[in-house]
Amino acid sequence: MSQDRIVIIGGGFGGLNAARALAGEPLQVTLIDRRNFHLFQPLLYQVATGGLSPANIASPLRAILQSYPNVEVLLAEVRHIDVPRRVVVLHEEEVPYDALVVAAGSAHHYFGHPEWEPLAPSLKTVEDATEIRRRVLLAFEAAEREPDATRRTAWLTFVVVGAGPTGVELAGAIAELSRRTLRQNFRHFDPASARILLVEGADRVLPTYYPKLSTKAAQALARLGVTLQLGALVTDIQPESVTVRCGEKLERIEARTVMWAAGVAASPLGKIVAEGTGATLDRQGRLVVEPDLSLPGHPEIFVIGDLAHYSHQTGEPLPGLAPVAMQQGRHVARVLRLRRQGKPVRPFRYYDRGTMATIGRAKAVADIRGIRFSGFLAWATWLFIHLMYIVRFQNRLLVLMQWAWNYTSRNAPARLITGGNPFPLPLSEERKNKADDQQGVS
Amino acid sequence: MSQDRIVIIGGGFGGLNAARALAGEPLQVTLIDRRNFHLFQPLLYQVATGGLSPANIASPLRAILQSYPNVEVLLAEVRHIDVPRRVVVLHEEEVPYDALVVAAGSAHHYFGHPEWEPLAPSLKTVEDATEIRRRVLLAFEAAEREPDATRRTAWLTFVVVGAGPTGVELAGAIAELSRRTLRQNFRHFDPASARILLVEGADRVLPTYYPKLSTKAAQALARLGVTLQLGALVTDIQPESVTVRCGEKLERIEARTVMWAAGVAASPLGKIVAEGTGATLDRQGRLVVEPDLSLPGHPEIFVIGDLAHYSHQTGEPLPGLAPVAMQQGRHVARVLRLRRQGKPVRPFRYYDRGTMATIGRAKAVADIRGIRFSGFLAWATWLFIHLMYIVRFQNRLLVLMQWAWNYTSRNAPARLITGGNPFPLPLSEERKNKADDQQGVS
Repeated sequence: MSQDRIVIIGGGFGGLNAARALAGEPLQVTLIDRRNFHLFQPLLYQVATGGLSPANIASPLRAILQSYPNVEVLLAEVRHIDVPRRVVVLHEEEVPYDALVVAAGSAHHYFGHPEWEPLAPSLKTVEDATEIRRRVLLAFEAAEREPDATRRTAWLTFVVVGAGPTGVELAGAIAELSRRTLRQNFRHFDPASARILLVEGADRVLPTYYPKLSTKAAQALARLGVTLQLGALVTDIQPESVTVRCGEKLERIEARTVMWAAGVAASPLGKIVAEGTGATLDRQGRLVVEPDLSLPGHPEIFVIGDLAHYSHQTGEPLPGLAPVAMQQGRHVARVLRLRRQGKPVRPFRYYDRGTMATIGRAKAVADIRGIRFSGFLAWATWLFIHLMYIVRFQNRLLVLMQWAWNYTSRNAPARLITGGNPFPLPLSEERKNKADDQQGVS
Repeated sequence: MSQDRIVIIGGGFGGLNAARALAGEPLQVTLIDRRNFHLFQPLLYQVATGGLSPANIASPLRAILQSYPNVEVLLAEVRHIDVPRRVVVLHEEEVPYDALVVAAGSAHHYFGHPEWEPLAPSLKTVEDATEIRRRVLLAFEAAEREPDATRRTAWLTFVVVGAGPTGVELAGAIAELSRRTLRQNFRHFDPASARILLVEGADRVLPTYYPKLSTKAAQALARLGVTLQLGALVTDIQPESVTVRCGEKLERIEARTVMWAAGVAASPLGKIVAEGTGATLDRQGRLVVEPDLSLPGHPEIFVIGDLAHYSHQTGEPLPGLAPVAMQQGRHVARVLRLRRQGKPVRPFRYYDRGTMATIGRAKAVADIRGIRFSGFLAWATWLFIHLMYIVRFQNRLLVLMQWAWNYTSRNAPARLITGGNPFPLPLSEERKNKADDQQGVS
């Protein structure tokens, strides 16, 4: 098998690390992505709550890869993979490959309720983050204008569905925003009266973490004023409410702002690859890979990151985390090199450096190689590790500056409402009457 | 006349400075804006070319004004001003005033060709800037994929219409981007081959500046590789071309990316105010104001900034510049205080601190109180003055950091293509055939 042309689909943690590890090799590498930048998704919640700008956590792919002459970037959308002919089909052309690395990642999944997506945006892309930012900030603006107390409460109720790391971090950051940053910003209500609900189907937050860390995280969230609803399933979402089932009890919560941090589904490319190769899809749409991360019977196709189901090491599939994808990307480069040299290939092994999550300002929980800790030390560790991961030096420095400033000033400088015209705001009729009364008096 | 309730329309340079100058006075001040942030428009071209993020040049209005209990911010769109009843009409309510400050600014004007707007976006809002950024970056991406030389040239032709400060700065920044930042980013063409055309109806760039500075600016632009077309009027814009008339000669330029930095028209609120007050509108839709910036016969209505036509000092109306608006905002606060104290009011006087414009990296022209200079010193002065103007300390520091980095690295870190899905890219059919050929060979 010739390995001249390597095509990588996806410029996330997996694909980008594969491309960098292949730089300088006697191969022609093409990285295909729909976006022109690599996004540091773990910090997207800080964009959604106005702490950071999108460019602080994104690096142009061409800039990252510009000094590697054997690596080419293609801004394109993959429509199909023709496995027998070994070509990736784009809208505009076909790209032939000798080896293919599929690192297309995952998307949010609404448990068979696609109609919930516009009502409860998830947090995957820069556009998702600025949309959530827009909704959260507009809710406070509407509360400032709304004279009816019940309707104001609905504007000030924020529901985050799913208490994995993203949900916990997002709920914590909204609590910080309302309790601290916005404290003096309004004249007609107290932003600290906002209710932040974190709804989770399991019986604890961060269900994939060590139980003691879940307890610590729950305590930190409670101190910030986040209300936990555990063992609770969302059964309905409407523009002004969420319905939650907790055991036998159905509860309708009046809320204008709902955010989705629950289900994750693999990229639809997984299905296309499965059809072309006969590979097995697991229930979450991930492709079951061989020990070397290739597909059974197709040593020329590798699948890595969130789209891969790899369970040779532990029996359980590896979680969809950035470090897994990064290590898998580098492993594929290693496999290709060893194959070319005719040397034996060892199975992929995930080296677990630990898991962590932040809760608001200067609080975090961490589980690093069995050592579990929480509080400020965990937060400082989290900060350090995240900064090390951020791809380019420039971003690292600017993000650190921005954090230092946010930390000392309790500020969220990027709280811009952007996008379409939000007027007229959907306020009650009472507003207008009140204005008329005032005018009658004056 | 009671001066209890002051309503300010617009949170730009004029309105914001009026609000701050009225803080602490025995008045109830309401600042109405459609956006929740003050935007430092003079640096918007740096957002359009990926040098800065929107939040670097925007500050939330509520944050700026949070410590002034007598100042309230209203996120709302003004639909009408009812002059006899003294109320500002919003979508949701009416806001009564005792004195009104109209600081609604200006919009771009397409010389009777509104159909050009989607084809040649202007640079007024954050959304305009990210849209221009998107188009410029997508043009380079399309050029990378386009095999047809003629069509590739059209992708690599950038036309900026209007050589005032915005046009000059934008053209210079695109030249920098193509000549330096993107140098190693592509594999199938040389970004430095991009053609940047600056089209101006007058016979020199920066026509409102001192002629010697125009010459200096033209020289700097030429060195950066910007092609000037002076004495040239745009007669048609199509998705793939611009037609320019130069004397008797009509020239059709194949270009996929056109940007508008030409006409400026006053906000449509000017017309509403004119109808309600009988005030005079000038040809550009500005309201002719009295020496104290109020309207004739309506001492309770002030008009400031780009929407005001003030010519008592010089015979010529003052230009639509940030310093004019800022000084006028503070003047209105002074007038209101003097009137309340029963003291005589002196006419507004504009204190001209100078005009300047940057051309690419580390080059600028300046005219500061009659002292005219250019080059690096002018650029350093420009940088210093702009940083001083940027409203909040945090932004100032971060923008300085970003600039320092951009300057040393020749980088444009915020070059993100955001917004909708751009696929399929509008490339020639040849592309696909070429791919088919390749495939036949392999």
